[in-house]
Amino acid sequence: MRPIDALVNSLSEARVVTDPDVIDSYARDRTFLEPGKPLGVVLAASRDDVVTTLKWATEHRVPVVPRGAGTGLAGASVAGDGSIVLSLARMTAIRELSPADEIAVVEPGVITADLDKAAREHGLMYAPDPSSYEISTIGGNLATNAGGLRCVKYGVTRDSALGLEVVLADGRVLNTGRRTMKGVTGYDLTGLFVGSEGTLGVITAATVRLRRAPAVPPATFAAEFGSLREAGAAVSAIMAAGCQPSLMELLDRATLEAIDDWRNIGLEPTTQAMLIGQSDAADGQAVAERMERICTDNGASFVAVSSSPQEAEELIGLRRLAYGAKERQGACLVEDVCVPRSALPEMITRIEAAAARHGVRIATVAHAGDGNLHPVFIFEHGTVEPPPEVWAAADEVFKDALELGGTLTGEHGVGLLKRRWLALETGPVSGELQGQIKAVFDPLGLLNPGKAI
Amino acid sequence: MRPIDALVNSLSEARVVTDPDVIDSYARDRTFLEPGKPLGVVLAASRDDVVTTLKWATEHRVPVVPRGAGTGLAGASVAGDGSIVLSLARMTAIRELSPADEIAVVEPGVITADLDKAAREHGLMYAPDPSSYEISTIGGNLATNAGGLRCVKYGVTRDSALGLEVVLADGRVLNTGRRTMKGVTGYDLTGLFVGSEGTLGVITAATVRLRRAPAVPPATFAAEFGSLREAGAAVSAIMAAGCQPSLMELLDRATLEAIDDWRNIGLEPTTQAMLIGQSDAADGQAVAERMERICTDNGASFVAVSSSPQEAEELIGLRRLAYGAKERQGACLVEDVCVPRSALPEMITRIEAAAARHGVRIATVAHAGDGNLHPVFIFEHGTVEPPPEVWAAADEVFKDALELGGTLTGEHGVGLLKRRWLALETGPVSGELQGQIKAVFDPLGLLNPGKAI
Repeated sequence: MRPIDALVNSLSEARVVTDPDVIDSYARDRTFLEPGKPLGVVLAASRDDVVTTLKWATEHRVPVVPRGAGTGLAGASVAGDGSIVLSLARMTAIRELSPADEIAVVEPGVITADLDKAAREHGLMYAPDPSSYEISTIGGNLATNAGGLRCVKYGVTRDSALGLEVVLADGRVLNTGRRTMKGVTGYDLTGLFVGSEGTLGVITAATVRLRRAPAVPPATFAAEFGSLREAGAAVSAIMAAGCQPSLMELLDRATLEAIDDWRNIGLEPTTQAMLIGQSDAADGQAVAERMERICTDNGASFVAVSSSPQEAEELIGLRRLAYGAKERQGACLVEDVCVPRSALPEMITRIEAAAARHGVRIATVAHAGDGNLHPVFIFEHGTVEPPPEVWAAADEVFKDALELGGTLTGEHGVGLLKRRWLALETGPVSGELQGQIKAVFDPLGLLNPGKAI
Repeated sequence: MRPIDALVNSLSEARVVTDPDVIDSYARDRTFLEPGKPLGVVLAASRDDVVTTLKWATEHRVPVVPRGAGTGLAGASVAGDGSIVLSLARMTAIRELSPADEIAVVEPGVITADLDKAAREHGLMYAPDPSSYEISTIGGNLATNAGGLRCVKYGVTRDSALGLEVVLADGRVLNTGRRTMKGVTGYDLTGLFVGSEGTLGVITAATVRLRRAPAVPPATFAAEFGSLREAGAAVSAIMAAGCQPSLMELLDRATLEAIDDWRNIGLEPTTQAMLIGQSDAADGQAVAERMERICTDNGASFVAVSSSPQEAEELIGLRRLAYGAKERQGACLVEDVCVPRSALPEMITRIEAAAARHGVRIATVAHAGDGNLHPVFIFEHGTVEPPPEVWAAADEVFKDALELGGTLTGEHGVGLLKRRWLALETGPVSGELQGQIKAVFDPLGLLNPGKAI
């Protein structure tokens, strides 16, 4: 009997996919990376399914690649030859939602937007909102420590994770963290699992923190600038003025051109950057007007504050068009560097220089309030892999980010894509310790091998 | 040559204390716990001193007990026989303070209030404010993941720690984390060190996040209630109304009696609890009045909002008297359980029941917005160790907290005091993994042995 047959017998036929075409669709994420040929896919419906799968994998020494919705942008859930894909997408129960304690206990397959929706029925919200929040899962968000647009005010996924239920590689069940807002008993294992990209264990439930939802819709402004320096100065001034934006996005010229090319937004030839911001404070309209004035004071050539939710939607809509507009122009490699906020204009300048030097098209959107930039490297449609000049430019961008005191990845994770730069950031001591921590949780190296560390 | 002489030679005589009386004063914290007889105290002035000390300790297999100001309440820096005490209190440099990036790089001996003061010169603040913030150090705050009064709005020390410089047991230097607001490269080693109570390495610098300081002084309210249930309901209603208090403290009857006994505050015989809250929002006065109304709606027998910073100081002053008032009445064992916020009244009720059952005096103050309670067990002055009935009551309190979905310690740490209850909360799987993580960082078990895990 093949090992996979033993797994089918222990679970149930319906839980294990062995059709190669279906397997292939579960072996990819949203990167260009080509997967290998996994043995099969487990569609886990319960923690027990996960335990059974991991015990089987340990017994037969089969690598396991956990996945949520497969919306990752770093290759962390791209599956290799001979592995088993463990999909958590069917574990979709919101086990508990306590308005009084402002927490929810959810399974990993819950779509992020669904949890937010459930929370809003009680006047609460689930704050982390990666751009993929309508299709990505809480489990995937936890595995990558996903950020999002609102994290300039509310923090990343880690900041909303209080406790986890995890199945370890050998099938043991571990509970980490707590249901309380604070707690310091023992080492912070919750934090260790968040962002570990499925390499330490498989999350089967999470206790997450909810927050009060703002009472009114957010107020929105947009501003255009003739230079990146001015836009960067406006971002700094807005933050320094204590405006606490709940969203603060910067679009560079290349991004605006891509959008204009698609939807004809009447882009001025002199516009080099656009800033779009929101305040969800009780006095949000006044704050948005204050941010608008700060933009004017910092040289904005055009500013507007929405006077209605519809107008706000239109302004934010521009930001939402960014990725689609780039995908029209070619295949995309999306990067994710993060620098200290004051280095944002310099980082964009360096990205533009790398683009020019290597003859590569790079269009950048930034979560400006956090200094988190997404330079999108655009290359020819149909090309399987980014051409060498893209990698050469990406290499410079990563090194520039590190030189400016930044990091390789603000919110997407290391996955397969960024492994070659990892040591540059972490250094040998950290690298060795991380390997030893991995060995504590997964001594046989079966969990998502080749990823993250 | 004795091992300690080798250390004196490698450092400099001034850095190593060997006078037994002075050593004893560095071997204690603020608990009643009696230390052993350490070999000496290193007064480290630089990272190199720490490296030298740890290399020496590894060579000679000498246990090392790191300490900041010794204000801990859990015995985490009580030193044992034959150990070396490693004081970081002289490493007091604020290496960098960047208003543009809203970060500071500080050495571990910086007094928490001093960092806050330095930040405020730039319109910023360092948010974590343990009650000891005027005498405790950033290093100690990090080691215990200290909370404080403001953490109901701004989070605990972990939420302000971006990156660390750590000297490992063998003298290697590790840099964790980053200078950016977001970052997901590798496992979260920063989070692992925060709250690890000196058992994994010695923090020699920290990159911490600063925040915009509120533009106006906070507005303050106080309310008295005839029952804990009503006070608890008011806390829930205030949080549910989205008031976002920056401070929300609950004092029980026993605490109020202790204060009244000392300062004659005119305590009404029917008052069972007092709630003191603040808002540091731009419209703080209006928010404080709203919180006051919510208290009235929930049955408060008396309410007041400060109309001036002086009045606010007087109201907060009551809270500050709490611990001193209890120390007048006897020796104090300060506990630190944390429960889901909705369980706060039930937890206080159970604490009172435990006090009655065991004939023990317990007075409780709570960071009510976080569900974090400090039941203070008061016993006879001059008693070296809490009598058996205090431990029996404490045992029930810990078990009650866990039963209500809570944790043993919200912000003080496990130290020596809570080790006997640790396994009840973490369970065997977590305990085993924590031991293995400890072994990765400190294979010889030299760092703060017998603490935390």
